[in-house]
Amino acid sequence: MSIFDQIRKPTLLLDEEIVRRNIRTMAKKAAANGVHFRPHFKTHQSCQIGEWFRAEGVQAITVSSVDMAKYFADCGWEDITLAFPVNLRQLDEIAELAGRIRLGVLVESVEVVHALGQRVSAPLSVWIKVDVGARRTGILWDDVETASALVKACRAYPSLHLKGLLTHAGQTYQAAYPVEVEEIYRQSLSKLQSLRHVLQEQGWAQSLLLSVGDTPACSIVQDFRPADEVRPGNFVFYDVQQWMLGACTWEQIAVALVCPVVSLHPRRGEAVIYGGAIHLSKEFLLSRGQRFYGLISLPKDGRWGEPLPGAYVARLSQEHGILRLFPHQLEQLRVGDLVCVLPVHSCLTAQAMGRYLTLDGVWIEMMPHP
Amino acid sequence: MSIFDQIRKPTLLLDEEIVRRNIRTMAKKAAANGVHFRPHFKTHQSCQIGEWFRAEGVQAITVSSVDMAKYFADCGWEDITLAFPVNLRQLDEIAELAGRIRLGVLVESVEVVHALGQRVSAPLSVWIKVDVGARRTGILWDDVETASALVKACRAYPSLHLKGLLTHAGQTYQAAYPVEVEEIYRQSLSKLQSLRHVLQEQGWAQSLLLSVGDTPACSIVQDFRPADEVRPGNFVFYDVQQWMLGACTWEQIAVALVCPVVSLHPRRGEAVIYGGAIHLSKEFLLSRGQRFYGLISLPKDGRWGEPLPGAYVARLSQEHGILRLFPHQLEQLRVGDLVCVLPVHSCLTAQAMGRYLTLDGVWIEMMPHP
Repeated sequence: MSIFDQIRKPTLLLDEEIVRRNIRTMAKKAAANGVHFRPHFKTHQSCQIGEWFRAEGVQAITVSSVDMAKYFADCGWEDITLAFPVNLRQLDEIAELAGRIRLGVLVESVEVVHALGQRVSAPLSVWIKVDVGARRTGILWDDVETASALVKACRAYPSLHLKGLLTHAGQTYQAAYPVEVEEIYRQSLSKLQSLRHVLQEQGWAQSLLLSVGDTPACSIVQDFRPADEVRPGNFVFYDVQQWMLGACTWEQIAVALVCPVVSLHPRRGEAVIYGGAIHLSKEFLLSRGQRFYGLISLPKDGRWGEPLPGAYVARLSQEHGILRLFPHQLEQLRVGDLVCVLPVHSCLTAQAMGRYLTLDGVWIEMMPHP
Repeated sequence: MSIFDQIRKPTLLLDEEIVRRNIRTMAKKAAANGVHFRPHFKTHQSCQIGEWFRAEGVQAITVSSVDMAKYFADCGWEDITLAFPVNLRQLDEIAELAGRIRLGVLVESVEVVHALGQRVSAPLSVWIKVDVGARRTGILWDDVETASALVKACRAYPSLHLKGLLTHAGQTYQAAYPVEVEEIYRQSLSKLQSLRHVLQEQGWAQSLLLSVGDTPACSIVQDFRPADEVRPGNFVFYDVQQWMLGACTWEQIAVALVCPVVSLHPRRGEAVIYGGAIHLSKEFLLSRGQRFYGLISLPKDGRWGEPLPGAYVARLSQEHGILRLFPHQLEQLRVGDLVCVLPVHSCLTAQAMGRYLTLDGVWIEMMPHP
């Protein structure tokens, strides 16, 4: 019996072999580069998948919310960086967590440093969040004044241990070519080095570490120097977005949303699946000006096959997905068949689905929402 | 103590008074028009909110999945139309449901009619799904041949009761002006009437009902004739999309995502909130070519205030929302403050959040996912 025989509604299928291979490849690359590997767990959000990282020697992780830090602390992770600006409304929870694991947080304002220093009595690792061009959070890389003030503020509290400078160069997601990703990586590291240099010259800090890591850069760049730590997350599953960026091959994509075909419209060149915005998320990419929300493949030998050339998810409503297909592809489909959608953004699809079914028919749970 | 004092992380706030008023207004409008009111429950997905509909005399509902039908059947709804193409992989569940409530389904292929007729022994209401221009599902409104074949196929099975023609004219969401919504409504009804006329002339069907209903049309159009039934859903909460279409005022928007401010960037004219794609969804609208994912207001007198002019959610990542604000608006904000985001698409935000907090501090649960 094939795994597909048991699927009745949209189901996020996971290929454990690919996931384990993706983890192993990145862990080895980090080791070969001599950098600390602190993968981001926001993509999979699963204690069980976390164990596959542990099997590759991973001991330290990154998360993006206090809830996620608590979830992974509860399943035995003792070294966690909370890579999201400190939410002052969750200071009590942060203080509690710092008392039971090695917790790291990101700061970008003196006010937050004081709040942490006054509220958290257990040792807390502190990273200065630096914006090297992503325009999301962090102090600007050339804002030496704020950086100095942050270092100074940290020094006032014995519980706060300044670890270094941390960035997420999310602008790699806008890169047109892999070589541009490499360039962004180099520039990001230069900016961090430059800031570290000034801080050290001014006597503010001795040995600041540099922590970086987005999946495009960690996948494409071969030489991680002079980073001390990398924190990619999405590589565990990859997705169509990463594939388009040149960060992976389609064979490295480890999850697919399996959906029943519910309606055929050959005159429009379209088929409709049960699988919509609430399953895939509304993340899209553009191809020749046309939005698409996923690529299509068919079940083959107990897993998903290679993407059908030119076929894509063209529109989404709450529960419907509208597929655009060539006539010869449409002819193969019947109502009740299953198609596999390779997601544009696997982090959001995983979040929307809440759990995974492995090719062996085992359910893997994620942290509960909300 | 204000409701905002207890909020520590992204929370979907619900104003019960507005919700009840939205329900009452639409129920009265349907009654005044002499049409059957069968609201779509996919927006709120909550048994508890369902009771507020019951209080306005509602007895029949619409849902968009088999799971949702089961959830509402379990909380006492006995007349449910499943307004989604029949998923052949859930025929057993459909048959079981038809055995315990008055279930209606949508068909658009003869093959599916046969599958239903052979598998479902309990009485089942059947609607022919007609595409009047939304290009999602349904037979084309002028495809008399398929319509006749569907009627004929239904007649072959005593359990199948053909009710009428049903459409969702989702193209109203693309309308530029309210008057265009009215025009789409009129055209949709004309198309349904025309198809009904031909089917009756050919002797295929006697008294086919016409069921329509998207929120823009049901909000903007005053005269529902010649529809027999309306099925709006989103109006229970409304949202920025409906407001932009002219389907509601901002005072009718009944939910807002409350989010802590975690980072301020006055030089960029931006603030960052804890509240991202996994909370709001990535649904956006365009304003002067610029994407926005929500409008911003501030807490005021224990609820959200009016939208700040010109302020919006400009970018989203998994947990971050980046707000664009004028300098005088930014100056009012401190890290740790709360802002309220009026969602672009309340159905998707509700789905992402999974529950509601009323202004009175009561949690309202939704159907469990997945």
